[in-house]
Amino acid sequence: MFIIGELINGMYANISRAIKAKDKAIIQKIALLQLDNGADALDVNCGPASVDPVNDMRWLVESIREVTDVELAIDSSKPKVIASGIEAAKRGTIINSVSADIEKMDALVPLAVKSGSKLIALAMSAKGIPGNKEQRLELAALIVTECDGKGFDLSRLYIDPVVLPVNVAQVQIKEILDSIGDFKILSAPPPKTIVGLSNISQGSSGRSLINRTFLAMALSAGLDAAILDPTDKELMDSLITAETLLNRRIYCDSYLDTYKKKGKNAPKKFSQA
Amino acid sequence: MFIIGELINGMYANISRAIKAKDKAIIQKIALLQLDNGADALDVNCGPASVDPVNDMRWLVESIREVTDVELAIDSSKPKVIASGIEAAKRGTIINSVSADIEKMDALVPLAVKSGSKLIALAMSAKGIPGNKEQRLELAALIVTECDGKGFDLSRLYIDPVVLPVNVAQVQIKEILDSIGDFKILSAPPPKTIVGLSNISQGSSGRSLINRTFLAMALSAGLDAAILDPTDKELMDSLITAETLLNRRIYCDSYLDTYKKKGKNAPKKFSQA
Repeated sequence: MFIIGELINGMYANISRAIKAKDKAIIQKIALLQLDNGADALDVNCGPASVDPVNDMRWLVESIREVTDVELAIDSSKPKVIASGIEAAKRGTIINSVSADIEKMDALVPLAVKSGSKLIALAMSAKGIPGNKEQRLELAALIVTECDGKGFDLSRLYIDPVVLPVNVAQVQIKEILDSIGDFKILSAPPPKTIVGLSNISQGSSGRSLINRTFLAMALSAGLDAAILDPTDKELMDSLITAETLLNRRIYCDSYLDTYKKKGKNAPKKFSQA
Repeated sequence: MFIIGELINGMYANISRAIKAKDKAIIQKIALLQLDNGADALDVNCGPASVDPVNDMRWLVESIREVTDVELAIDSSKPKVIASGIEAAKRGTIINSVSADIEKMDALVPLAVKSGSKLIALAMSAKGIPGNKEQRLELAALIVTECDGKGFDLSRLYIDPVVLPVNVAQVQIKEILDSIGDFKILSAPPPKTIVGLSNISQGSSGRSLINRTFLAMALSAGLDAAILDPTDKELMDSLITAETLLNRRIYCDSYLDTYKKKGKNAPKKFSQA
């Protein structure tokens, strides 16, 4: 599975403080910590409190690029903030995210094509969050059609069924799991699927248990990628075990340690600046 | 989910010793321990070392029946041992198990009908364990046809896809999960599905992690029942969480404690002897 670390986000107090103080060391430390724990890519979000998100995003990306060349998911609801992050990163970017709204796709899909970015698209629109899996599939179909029409490589498209918290939308969780499989029938090659994992336990106690149980079920349904906290050891153990049971990783008696060492030893920097 | 506690089995040293010494107290304690931890029923198996399994099974069942009236899964490969356990239990019995072999079904399905027992059937035959999901479905179809033809109520039939250890049959685990859904198309009402959970981690280290991750995936695939160790706290936490995410139990902030208390307070004895 493609793992995007979620910890560089201005909604966390340590990141918010680092952005305000322009303290690169904190950002770089958390970037490397996530990679050491198995993240393949890093989400970058300046958070809701940023008063200058275009420049904060540039500073975050430049700070991270000093220590690693891994893919960065430039995470903002504002197209100009996304453009700023993509420009600063130069390459290896993921646009996070577009929704199933024509004006948003008109702004961001061409940017994804031009910059060679991957694209995360949410199966929701300005009208709100879908109420069932049929609506999710309809919105995903619109996304696939628009991306295809605009010349975007569908194998680089990640559709998010939009995970809702179990404490407010319990009845929808099974439908969200079903959507992961449903989206695969939309095109050939099929779009990839992704979830923002932590949403499932928003407002619940025992969050890690809920997160890792949902992740095992989502992987079983065919999930390709997730934005999550790779420093949650029990979550990563579940992820590695689920992938092993699904024959996506080779089993050996020390399979957990083997894959953890792999994360620890992975090159963080693929070229020198 | 219907949970059958696996701990009363002569393959465990404490049970084997209790059978030899005819120490009822040990058996009764482990029976109640499993019920306190959320088991709905108890598996009863005198183990491979028993030299007199017909009488050992009777003694085990009579010992358990002194403290509880819950359903008992009479677990043996020998039809006469099963008959002995059913006779001793009087009611609330589950035959564990029949395989997809005509002579076995000829012996045990009529016994299930006559005694009002539920029936666990393994999707394997004297020819061996199936190599893929198509073979599993074929064997399950034979089981359904035979049970239906012999007047057995299919809603009381539990088919086991036969779980293999991940360390020897990694490539088959996904197929086993698929079989859980496949079996549901065989009849209306569909047969129920069951797994002997611990098999998945036989010979592996970190068994509980493998067990609970597989269980979450199997539940997501529609699993109805499992034979497992209800005293494995992390396993039961995963089970309760998976069922809650699948909307099979109602979410509340203290959902784990709520369902644990329910197990603890469930009546163990429904009538007096």
